Amino acid sequence: MESKSSIEQHAGKSIRCKAAICRNASEPLVIEEIEVDPPKAWESPIGFFPRILGHEAVGVVESVGENVEEVKEGDIVVPVFLSNCGECKDCKSSKSNCCSIFKNRTTKDMPRDGSSRFRSMINGEAIYHCLNVSSFSEYTVVDVTHVVKITDDLPVDKACLLSCGVSTGLGAAWKVADVEQGSTVAIFGLGAVGLAVAVGARERGASKIIGVDLNPQKFEIGKQFGVTDFVNPTTCGDKTVSEVIKEMTDGGADYCFECIGLASLMNDAFSSSREGWGKTIILGVEMHGSALAVNPYQIQRGRSITGSLFGGFKPKSDIPLIAKKYLDNELFILDDFITHEVSFQDINKAFQYLLEGESLRCIIWMDRRDT
Amino acid sequence: MESKSSIEQHAGKSIRCKAAICRNASEPLVIEEIEVDPPKAWESPIGFFPRILGHEAVGVVESVGENVEEVKEGDIVVPVFLSNCGECKDCKSSKSNCCSIFKNRTTKDMPRDGSSRFRSMINGEAIYHCLNVSSFSEYTVVDVTHVVKITDDLPVDKACLLSCGVSTGLGAAWKVADVEQGSTVAIFGLGAVGLAVAVGARERGASKIIGVDLNPQKFEIGKQFGVTDFVNPTTCGDKTVSEVIKEMTDGGADYCFECIGLASLMNDAFSSSREGWGKTIILGVEMHGSALAVNPYQIQRGRSITGSLFGGFKPKSDIPLIAKKYLDNELFILDDFITHEVSFQDINKAFQYLLEGESLRCIIWMDRRDT
Repeated sequence: MESKSSIEQHAGKSIRCKAAICRNASEPLVIEEIEVDPPKAWESPIGFFPRILGHEAVGVVESVGENVEEVKEGDIVVPVFLSNCGECKDCKSSKSNCCSIFKNRTTKDMPRDGSSRFRSMINGEAIYHCLNVSSFSEYTVVDVTHVVKITDDLPVDKACLLSCGVSTGLGAAWKVADVEQGSTVAIFGLGAVGLAVAVGARERGASKIIGVDLNPQKFEIGKQFGVTDFVNPTTCGDKTVSEVIKEMTDGGADYCFECIGLASLMNDAFSSSREGWGKTIILGVEMHGSALAVNPYQIQRGRSITGSLFGGFKPKSDIPLIAKKYLDNELFILDDFITHEVSFQDINKAFQYLLEGESLRCIIWMDRRDT
Repeated sequence: MESKSSIEQHAGKSIRCKAAICRNASEPLVIEEIEVDPPKAWESPIGFFPRILGHEAVGVVESVGENVEEVKEGDIVVPVFLSNCGECKDCKSSKSNCCSIFKNRTTKDMPRDGSSRFRSMINGEAIYHCLNVSSFSEYTVVDVTHVVKITDDLPVDKACLLSCGVSTGLGAAWKVADVEQGSTVAIFGLGAVGLAVAVGARERGASKIIGVDLNPQKFEIGKQFGVTDFVNPTTCGDKTVSEVIKEMTDGGADYCFECIGLASLMNDAFSSSREGWGKTIILGVEMHGSALAVNPYQIQRGRSITGSLFGGFKPKSDIPLIAKKYLDNELFILDDFITHEVSFQDINKAFQYLLEGESLRCIIWMDRRDT
């Protein structure tokens, strides 16, 4: 995608542009010139290696493929990794946000025909997509089930925050957990997702919002997002994290959110939840493919485990609602998630900030040379 | 406890009576004469070995200890393994039935002072209690937090069914899962608990109630309790049980109940639940102490796991409501849970019927010589 100011017409033709390509795991991204095929039927322009990463973004529609009526050239859209066809049993139900028509996608290529729209200008090889978005490119192609049209009064740097992490945290607090006034909340992992959970819980009037993180700086950062108490697992002494949280909450937190993606931490979250009604909400994608193992007797004493992708939100209907909340001045806090900004050529700096625990969200401007 | 007709006054004195004692694991119970101490403060007469088993019962209060005002001599009461003090945060909350004051009970002796009220008349040794009830004795002693007073118009053989299994199944369907009209239900294990889940789901208007059991006779039995479809795991061919259930329900059941107590079956139940909103309810007490291991990514796609003791019911307030339902002719089906009746001296036959898969509930009459 490209910024609206530089939009040009390429409809039906391939586009040459720059993209940050991941050629191997653990290596810095390399910005190379690529060719982007025009959108095919049902697609509206948004792996394995080489691959174009990036799944939180905002952009302007350059052209649309056959059958696409929902968006048109010039529309501002937020691409989302989660499909929302609007036609299946799940998309039509208020209980689910897991589109059941497009659920078995590999996310390494286009969902309908399993092919790539990207080709390297260096050697002509196909480049894989990522998570149905691949936003680390000046131009990308996404299926129409993965774009959400937004109004153009929402600043683009705020808009792209709604594309994944921040929405996930807000939805988890509001929709999945349905946090209540006066309840206690424990959040495992204070990245953008965890902090957005805190924002959502604070808005609901939670009486205690405990942040759990290995990075001691996260407590000060967390305060502005609603975190009231902090637990650093490395300084709990002889106690486990769950023992400490149980002491802080008179028996366990009402709601425990796992926002990292580690089975052991999911278990810690579960163990920190209150007997009787404690709910554990899994948001992190388990990074080692490990199973979550829990004691079934603890479940029988009234605890439950649930989870969601994208905070239980339906992209097409819920992203516009959050956008409206921001425009109505009810979500000023969105601004504070943006800690860094870089130009596209400095994209690897954005990863560095993240690895150093310095950034929450770093805006990568595709069309600015200096930042 | 004893039947009302034979009530005698022993208040404040020990009582000699007969009890069926479990002297070793796997051995038949032996009926021996024992001495039952009078109730101490807070107690109203209702492990390890030797032990008096039995936790589903009904009886008449013979005498009460100090501080007991809720029941008096002559009252008909249903004893329950789950405490319900009525004073703690959990007992006062509509979200929990896990009394938090009396939660750490060993269940092998009286909950407040950790001593036994039973002594062998053979050698004077103390005999352990079981699950706060120990009803395999002509007289037993239970804490007042474990008895529920019922009206004397409810036939005693129906009353004792409400003491655990049947209530657990009904509560799981009505309160924990909150089964909806038209939904699909899978029940793993068609014992009395599983069949009571079917009764509850049928009353809610479930469109499909799938019973899963290794005993092929359970389908015919199940039909009268509401089971509409049957899966025998031994006849699924190359398919797993969850694959079969997913085919029968167009993607997975809305509600899956585990009513056996096997971690592997809990996992089968979870895998049989529908993506998007499928709920797995754990009712069986895991019999090997194994952990329940699930794929966290499946949780993130909208599935949840919950569970309960006693079907989420609060004994003191909910048992009288179920009793009223029966008296109002809305639960005729209770009668069908009673498949056998034996006299106390034949108590080991009751276990035999259960092991042979023949019985659902066998009434053990303490005061009848022949049945």
